Amino acid sequence: MSDTHAVAPVPGRVMAGEMAEQPAVLQRVLDEGAPRIRAIAAEIAARGPRFVLLTGRGTSDNAALYAKYLVEILLGRPAGLTSMSTTTAYGARQDLRDCLVVTVSQSGGSPDLVASTRAAREAGAVTLAVTNNAASPLAEVSEYHVDVLAGPEKALPATKTYTAELLALYLLVEGLRGGDGAAAKALPELAAGVLARQDEVRALAERYRFAQRLVLTSRGYGYPTAREAALKLMETTYIPATPFSGADLLHGPLAMVDNVSPVIAVVPDGKGGEALQPVLDRLRGRGADLVVVGPQAQVDAASAGFALPAGVPEELQPVLEILPLQRLAYEVTIARGQDPDAPRALAKVTETH
Amino acid sequence: MSDTHAVAPVPGRVMAGEMAEQPAVLQRVLDEGAPRIRAIAAEIAARGPRFVLLTGRGTSDNAALYAKYLVEILLGRPAGLTSMSTTTAYGARQDLRDCLVVTVSQSGGSPDLVASTRAAREAGAVTLAVTNNAASPLAEVSEYHVDVLAGPEKALPATKTYTAELLALYLLVEGLRGGDGAAAKALPELAAGVLARQDEVRALAERYRFAQRLVLTSRGYGYPTAREAALKLMETTYIPATPFSGADLLHGPLAMVDNVSPVIAVVPDGKGGEALQPVLDRLRGRGADLVVVGPQAQVDAASAGFALPAGVPEELQPVLEILPLQRLAYEVTIARGQDPDAPRALAKVTETH
Repeated sequence: MSDTHAVAPVPGRVMAGEMAEQPAVLQRVLDEGAPRIRAIAAEIAARGPRFVLLTGRGTSDNAALYAKYLVEILLGRPAGLTSMSTTTAYGARQDLRDCLVVTVSQSGGSPDLVASTRAAREAGAVTLAVTNNAASPLAEVSEYHVDVLAGPEKALPATKTYTAELLALYLLVEGLRGGDGAAAKALPELAAGVLARQDEVRALAERYRFAQRLVLTSRGYGYPTAREAALKLMETTYIPATPFSGADLLHGPLAMVDNVSPVIAVVPDGKGGEALQPVLDRLRGRGADLVVVGPQAQVDAASAGFALPAGVPEELQPVLEILPLQRLAYEVTIARGQDPDAPRALAKVTETH
Repeated sequence: MSDTHAVAPVPGRVMAGEMAEQPAVLQRVLDEGAPRIRAIAAEIAARGPRFVLLTGRGTSDNAALYAKYLVEILLGRPAGLTSMSTTTAYGARQDLRDCLVVTVSQSGGSPDLVASTRAAREAGAVTLAVTNNAASPLAEVSEYHVDVLAGPEKALPATKTYTAELLALYLLVEGLRGGDGAAAKALPELAAGVLARQDEVRALAERYRFAQRLVLTSRGYGYPTAREAALKLMETTYIPATPFSGADLLHGPLAMVDNVSPVIAVVPDGKGGEALQPVLDRLRGRGADLVVVGPQAQVDAASAGFALPAGVPEELQPVLEILPLQRLAYEVTIARGQDPDAPRALAKVTETH
């Protein structure tokens, strides 16, 4: 008798478990994280930053882009995404007085993020790290730190840390502008409802099993979702999945889309969706296979899709939009006989310099 | 006798002609454009902007990204790329005092660029338009205007306006920091030398005739080139061509690259190239087909490539780097039996709102 032989791991078991944790993680951010985020936001607001710079890599860069929309629209402050190499490779020394520099990182461990945050602090910026590791070098080097409280993430594709980052950043910007973030309270239950509809996503996944390319598009608040969905699909399924803002798609890459190039559109229920409408019309006119994640009426007008619950403020919809798309990446990967937990060539903490 | 029957147009004739004009256009920017750019830069510098926002779509967005590197590294000012929909779709009203807003557009005609520039001016920003049309609505609505003097561009893929925008933006940032931009004087002759080597590019194009995907990568000053090359390849050849900063490639999409996914790396001769080195090593380790545009030694260490002239300051290399890549898009398109002058589904002036 022996219990030493390894049980063959079930492909995607870890990623599936972490996706399923998301309603609980969101609840934890609301219950345990929000008071501290509010306190930090009040301190930062009192210092009156005029410009906001946001930094991240990979999935956390997409969360940073979401925060850029919040800062520009809700807070009315100009914002930029950092080109990190200007500091870490070229040694640029910028005047960052009156700037808030927000660095988003799951691990808080990448040396370039630590170096660029240290440089920003020395250049006069108020620095804030948003990470899933309160003991990380990045949390250490930043003046302020927000813990996204997602618990250890073991699968290589980040899922629960992304939605936790989104919610933490939303609560931060709400705090900066003196709001209470109450609209977010409905998210955990809504997220659980979306996650329960796995069968719908599995049916959608059939369509991409043999796809050789994918185009994702959105506008406004939904654009970070399109980018994150493309990243998730690329790193798990290996299908080249290219994200475009709807406006940029019309400026060139539309030529790439035809009836063999499937398109996934993330359609916000609100102004972003309205701005995307002419793009959707053009895509339909070209006979594109169009799958929509968005309001029921938009799904009904597309080839197929996944309808999101109505009544959620547009700025909070990204927390829900990504859920069926994470699952889609998972299901397509399983259908192609690969393991979503362990894409080839990747390490969980990427050490870029 | 009749001369009314149409002569069949030669595919790509217009694009080829416009690419060939580039040395003359660069010379015109240096001779006729530079004095006015210098004068505008002096006026703007006297107003002491502390934060720079850059806006563009498609090819001009890639030129704007190049300017972002210049602003951060050479000028030492924080900078951001505008998310235009925050203004045009969401009506965000930002406090833009002490901000310089630079809007880059070939036609100067896209309504969203005009609207966002008008909003920026009303919000207190110093506004500058960089366009190829001095009579355009965008030039009209901006406080300052720089004409890139490229002459009418008729082919749908932008080529000569891109390099003219790069040079104009370089001279602008040089002016803002009190430099004379003298290093740019060598560019027209160097560009002519690069353009003369068409046979080398045609040989490289063989390799991609049947390619189903492409990955482009770079870091630092070369990253806008990687993005612009990807856009050019997508809009002419319709091959999905995905650009990644080298650091982002390691954070996920590397899984997509294997020995059937060709990679084109733009390797700056300088700090950007040094920072890219670990990425090139990883790609070689995975058996990727690696084509390099960069220094001779980097080309020699790759599967194939196109060597750029030595001795050019790193911040000016993008003006030369893009030339063989524009030509590559042209040659691959011809080899695939398509017409580079008129990609399907595109209009020259894209009216996004």
